[in-house]
Amino acid sequence: MRKIIAVYPGTFDPVTNGHLDIIERASLLFGKVIVAVALNVNKEPLFTREERRNMLIHVTKHYKNVEIDDFNGLLVSYAKKKNAHVIIRGLRAVSDFEYEFQMSLTNRKLEPEISTIFLMPNEKYTYLNSSLVRELARLGGDVKCFVPPYVLSQLKMKLSEVAR
Amino acid sequence: MRKIIAVYPGTFDPVTNGHLDIIERASLLFGKVIVAVALNVNKEPLFTREERRNMLIHVTKHYKNVEIDDFNGLLVSYAKKKNAHVIIRGLRAVSDFEYEFQMSLTNRKLEPEISTIFLMPNEKYTYLNSSLVRELARLGGDVKCFVPPYVLSQLKMKLSEVAR
Amino acid sequence: MRKIIAVYPGTFDPVTNGHLDIIERASLLFGKVIVAVALNVNKEPLFTREERRNMLIHVTKHYKNVEIDDFNGLLVSYAKKKNAHVIIRGLRAVSDFEYEFQMSLTNRKLEPEISTIFLMPNEKYTYLNSSLVRELARLGGDVKCFVPPYVLSQLKMKLSEVAR
Amino acid sequence: MRKIIAVYPGTFDPVTNGHLDIIERASLLFGKVIVAVALNVNKEPLFTREERRNMLIHVTKHYKNVEIDDFNGLLVSYAKKKNAHVIIRGLRAVSDFEYEFQMSLTNRKLEPEISTIFLMPNEKYTYLNSSLVRELARLGGDVKCFVPPYVLSQLKMKLSEVAR
Amino acid sequence: MRKIIAVYPGTFDPVTNGHLDIIERASLLFGKVIVAVALNVNKEPLFTREERRNMLIHVTKHYKNVEIDDFNGLLVSYAKKKNAHVIIRGLRAVSDFEYEFQMSLTNRKLEPEISTIFLMPNEKYTYLNSSLVRELARLGGDVKCFVPPYVLSQLKMKLSEVAR
Amino acid sequence: MRKIIAVYPGTFDPVTNGHLDIIERASLLFGKVIVAVALNVNKEPLFTREERRNMLIHVTKHYKNVEIDDFNGLLVSYAKKKNAHVIIRGLRAVSDFEYEFQMSLTNRKLEPEISTIFLMPNEKYTYLNSSLVRELARLGGDVKCFVPPYVLSQLKMKLSEVAR
Repeated sequence: MRKIIAVYPGTFDPVTNGHLDIIERASLLFGKVIVAVALNVNKEPLFTREERRNMLIHVTKHYKNVEIDDFNGLLVSYAKKKNAHVIIRGLRAVSDFEYEFQMSLTNRKLEPEISTIFLMPNEKYTYLNSSLVRELARLGGDVKCFVPPYVLSQLKMKLSEVAR
Repeated sequence: MRKIIAVYPGTFDPVTNGHLDIIERASLLFGKVIVAVALNVNKEPLFTREERRNMLIHVTKHYKNVEIDDFNGLLVSYAKKKNAHVIIRGLRAVSDFEYEFQMSLTNRKLEPEISTIFLMPNEKYTYLNSSLVRELARLGGDVKCFVPPYVLSQLKMKLSEVAR
Repeated sequence: MRKIIAVYPGTFDPVTNGHLDIIERASLLFGKVIVAVALNVNKEPLFTREERRNMLIHVTKHYKNVEIDDFNGLLVSYAKKKNAHVIIRGLRAVSDFEYEFQMSLTNRKLEPEISTIFLMPNEKYTYLNSSLVRELARLGGDVKCFVPPYVLSQLKMKLSEVAR
Repeated sequence: MRKIIAVYPGTFDPVTNGHLDIIERASLLFGKVIVAVALNVNKEPLFTREERRNMLIHVTKHYKNVEIDDFNGLLVSYAKKKNAHVIIRGLRAVSDFEYEFQMSLTNRKLEPEISTIFLMPNEKYTYLNSSLVRELARLGGDVKCFVPPYVLSQLKMKLSEVAR
Repeated sequence: MRKIIAVYPGTFDPVTNGHLDIIERASLLFGKVIVAVALNVNKEPLFTREERRNMLIHVTKHYKNVEIDDFNGLLVSYAKKKNAHVIIRGLRAVSDFEYEFQMSLTNRKLEPEISTIFLMPNEKYTYLNSSLVRELARLGGDVKCFVPPYVLSQLKMKLSEVAR
Repeated sequence: MRKIIAVYPGTFDPVTNGHLDIIERASLLFGKVIVAVALNVNKEPLFTREERRNMLIHVTKHYKNVEIDDFNGLLVSYAKKKNAHVIIRGLRAVSDFEYEFQMSLTNRKLEPEISTIFLMPNEKYTYLNSSLVRELARLGGDVKCFVPPYVLSQLKMKLSEVAR
């Protein structure tokens, strides 16, 4: 029985409870899960590459088969370099669906050996995403239901920096 | 490393190339894949339980870790009885999405230990489903791009019986 | 200040926690809420008109401004006869949206004085509907998270009758 | 310059103002428009084949290049027999989209020479379809905004027959 | 009977006939309607805060129970400060739906006492929004069907300023 | 029989195989097809107006009734100036649908004489668009399945310029 390697890519700006829910379940299904921070995204992130990696390391440290990494360039090229068999994506809403479908078909065309699988988050985290968390936090809303405690404290620190 | 058991449920009336594409990829990712014919569906199927099982056995015989079975009653109860860790579903179109989302959330509530994962079929089989195949075949259309040759011959035989 | 009268129509076969959530919030916003069991629906209901009314009466008895009724024929004609100003509908998912939009535009054309408003249920009841409850219950699934206790007992009784 | 032949298929049970809007515009764009009543539909229509054809003939008689016909079997086979270059479909709502997309891709696979084109109806007829018209009329609603006067009279006659 | 206070938030850049349709109907259903210009939006508006407020005041002056205001920060915090019971949103299209659903669930989590209700605009204003109006006006299209006459004149003045 | 003139507008930054598929089929159905590069788009294009026109001219040179042009301002005003009867749009996915519907209704209100028709691309080009092509190419992915050879060479040249 071969060990299946999965890549879970994302911006993780910051990691939310919805992401954690998917990481936890992926870690039960696959031999190794590489959570990979995507760096080549157009918009400026709130957290730096190091901050995003550190938050991910902190909140996933009790999962033995989870690794944190980051990447530039094409996702499938990165996944191939890592010998991954699977790309994991979360699907929360219909509006995610078509973009994900497009990327999944494109990635399959580029690297037919790598399958994309989709997991749906817990109903509590449906419709939750990092940009909602950032927006709520920026406007003074309480996001403690949406992110792990460590991320909450980092978010408060970051926003007080930005405001200064 | 534990052996992950996956259940891929469906009506398979009949199995299409889209189903086969998903079975093949699932067999590469999981230790065992149980393809399970759902019997408790309201509408009358075109093929009997035995015929649907036989077609599945025929077209999956070269996958060593694929088993064919059928079930009545609740999918998650069946999956639990089989010690499955994963339920596999194909996602082809937005219109599938919400029903699948509903079932995935419901199943998670009933059996939190079992995850539902989604695979998207090859672009050639997007929008392909068994009822389209039956409808086209019934109206005299050629469905040889959509089903394996063995299923094509069974379909022709069945429709000539029905017409008689 | 005039007393606003609202009609909340549905099949209520049976009433779920999602319906109750909407009834409760509507009772806070409007002077009177008439929960109206629609009788002229094509498919055969599981519960009779009397049973559906009785379950609704039972689970809404502590809301002073909620009445239970039933109707045949066109919803807007019924609403007009009741001097209603508002029709209330629940919106759970994209797949509801277009049908509801169609009905809302049609009803507005037929009775411009009556507005349709939409409420979204609690996230716990997103994707919950009566047919899912009936289906799960029929297959032996536990639906106690989805319906009030009184409805649960009625559902068990009804399904044991049907099975006999 | 060759004369382009278009087929506009449908159940037309009955023809609505939305259909007429599409027929009118198609008649301006193509050399010949064949409005084709689909007979091989599963559900029982309200109007017979003859009645549906007669209503169509009546309401399109002032368009010189419009013909009324009916067909059994596969749409693309019919279109090919008629030497059609184009199949016309109305698109009113997202919920139509995926089915139409599926059929358009399937038809293209079966007959690559025939293109499917989509027209959107006037905003007044968005969300209007024959089954809404039948349902409203059956419940005593006024449908005079939705169908031509001749169809309105036929609908009244038919429903009084059915009620008897 | 308590007086229900409703907040109708938006960018109103500028107010359109679709907004007015919703304001009018809301003013009939609720004791007080506060139309609240959202200031903390990322993109630069065409009209200033004062201009947007003035246009709203001008076009709603005949509704006795409608007030114009603006706000910064979190919508639910503003609504709570205003003792509002209801947040009103317009729903025009499927593409609005998921964002609105997300915000409605989030707002409910933050302030469970405040309900979000949705109204659908007149069919004539389906698919109409402020950015379409601005875009059409900018390209020289005629938008007199889409905005009140006072807004039309303000829009012309503004665009001639911008062009200068 | 009058000669029908069709306008096919787009950014064409760059033209893809999906666009070509639509141009080819449109050229069979209409007397003249004007492929019109839209210049008044907010975001900065990758290719200049001249480059986009040249690529279009190169890849459509064997279609006798296809012309390449560009335009500023309102699409329907341009179409009217060109005496066009039809505007052609490609529809690839549900997420296109609502925007296209909005534009189609708006254009019809502004110029009732001009019809918008929709064509769906070959299944191979579903979900393909210019921004996906640019993004893939920028990240070093191979896009030779998605664009004509001439465009592929232009894209490589352009990206090496940009990188310098």
